[in-house]
Amino acid sequence: MTSQPRLAFIGLGIMGAPMAGHLLRAGYPLTIHSRTKSKAADLLTAGATWSDTPAAATSAADVVFICVTDTPDVEAVLFADHGVVHSARPGLIVVDHSTISPTATKRFAADLAKRGATLLDAPVSGGDVGARNATLAIMVGGDRPAFDRVLPLLQYLGKTITHCGPAGSGQLTKLVNQILVSVTTSPSAKRSRSPPPVASTPTGAIQAVAGGAAGSWQLSNLGPKMIAGDRKPGFMIDLQLKDLRLVQEAAADLGLHLPAVELVASLFKNAQATGHGREGTQALFDEVRRVSTR
Amino acid sequence: MTSQPRLAFIGLGIMGAPMAGHLLRAGYPLTIHSRTKSKAADLLTAGATWSDTPAAATSAADVVFICVTDTPDVEAVLFADHGVVHSARPGLIVVDHSTISPTATKRFAADLAKRGATLLDAPVSGGDVGARNATLAIMVGGDRPAFDRVLPLLQYLGKTITHCGPAGSGQLTKLVNQILVSVTTSPSAKRSRSPPPVASTPTGAIQAVAGGAAGSWQLSNLGPKMIAGDRKPGFMIDLQLKDLRLVQEAAADLGLHLPAVELVASLFKNAQATGHGREGTQALFDEVRRVSTR
Repeated sequence: MTSQPRLAFIGLGIMGAPMAGHLLRAGYPLTIHSRTKSKAADLLTAGATWSDTPAAATSAADVVFICVTDTPDVEAVLFADHGVVHSARPGLIVVDHSTISPTATKRFAADLAKRGATLLDAPVSGGDVGARNATLAIMVGGDRPAFDRVLPLLQYLGKTITHCGPAGSGQLTKLVNQILVSVTTSPSAKRSRSPPPVASTPTGAIQAVAGGAAGSWQLSNLGPKMIAGDRKPGFMIDLQLKDLRLVQEAAADLGLHLPAVELVASLFKNAQATGHGREGTQALFDEVRRVSTR
Repeated sequence: MTSQPRLAFIGLGIMGAPMAGHLLRAGYPLTIHSRTKSKAADLLTAGATWSDTPAAATSAADVVFICVTDTPDVEAVLFADHGVVHSARPGLIVVDHSTISPTATKRFAADLAKRGATLLDAPVSGGDVGARNATLAIMVGGDRPAFDRVLPLLQYLGKTITHCGPAGSGQLTKLVNQILVSVTTSPSAKRSRSPPPVASTPTGAIQAVAGGAAGSWQLSNLGPKMIAGDRKPGFMIDLQLKDLRLVQEAAADLGLHLPAVELVASLFKNAQATGHGREGTQALFDEVRRVSTR
């Protein structure tokens, strides 16, 4: 890679916009594109260049970053009319930060490889706070030399950056992450339904167990929100269910039966069905309380 | 309490023996009793005094510590012939470090109170390593002034010492702890069944997710053992099931339905039924792998 690669960033949502901002402030020439141009305003003011299509953004860049929502969104950015593939050329590296299907990712990587371009799947964990503070965990699958070349760029975005294996393995690792996140939310939720003797000092009870073998990020971060009745989304139930669907699809591809995932997905679906989809995952509290007291 | 209270310790198993040793080395006069006298040898060499019965140990002590296995064991130590109650007197404090039924604990506390003695339920978390290193988490229920009086003694045994509320609330908090511990083991186990792309760097995959929202004590400590095939018990499946039975009994008392606990208990029971009861909880890996690949 040249010492000053030209970058493009496609998808300027709650995650993509701050990530693109870090790359721009690091001094790289940056072309941006998003379905909604208004989301680009701050970045354009700060010196980024607008492109009307993914293909146009790609033609101006050595490395293209993508951060959209789901598998069909990535497929459209890459392969629709005016998609990245139409400007793909040997040496181009595409870094996909979206959380999508590992199976589809392998197919996308193979299709881009026909044009000499390399796709790295690089889903992130850490939420909007992690994106703003550049403390994301980034789980990367794909060609190792390409990973080594973009690693200095990823270090502007995250703190824990891991090459997990060939194409698709970043997405698989992210799905493992989402299994752990979602299943850990479920027992945390039960805590809040404890009977009066402990509930009289619920925060103390969390402190009592959080330092030991029961400790988890979910307990320490979401437990206090459950107790306080704070349902503001760090991570929305709708998106958790999207990721659990990806987990279940991947499990089906592999012939796996994951009973805890199925249980937790059913609890989250009930929470969504009762109107909590756009609340944070800690609102599972309400659903667990509902099914717990029959 | 006098500046130098006389102590007794009943139950010198894998947890009790090192805990009693900390109190002895701290300079307190210590009387000990255990069903198996051979377990007392090291403590007797170090200066402890043997008693043939819990009642005799109690008559020589201002504070009596108990660390046995299950509800009937504590009931026998307290109320059987030659039990603690027969030497109980006003001002005596009994600290029960066993993990047992919260409901039975409340009954035991009321029965001791009739003799003017105070029972504190003080179950611990942190395993044999925590007992040896005096880094246990101790969750205490019962009379607050009694808690304040024994706190300086508990600080020789543990690091995180929390007064959770009235009698039984230490046991309830410990059961919350065991829910979180056991349910977090289940998704961790699934990790090890990941397909080849990630499994080629399983330790890296754990590192990739452990620092973020999926992180937990169980993942960081048991995940590597699952990958290495190390089934040596930190905490035995047999004992985990004993604690899950206590959780389910407490839930039944409260009219609660805890679906994740039921799922995890059924997985652990299958692991026990297939001969893994005396292995560490990380051996749940095998059971999850078995049910996952149908």
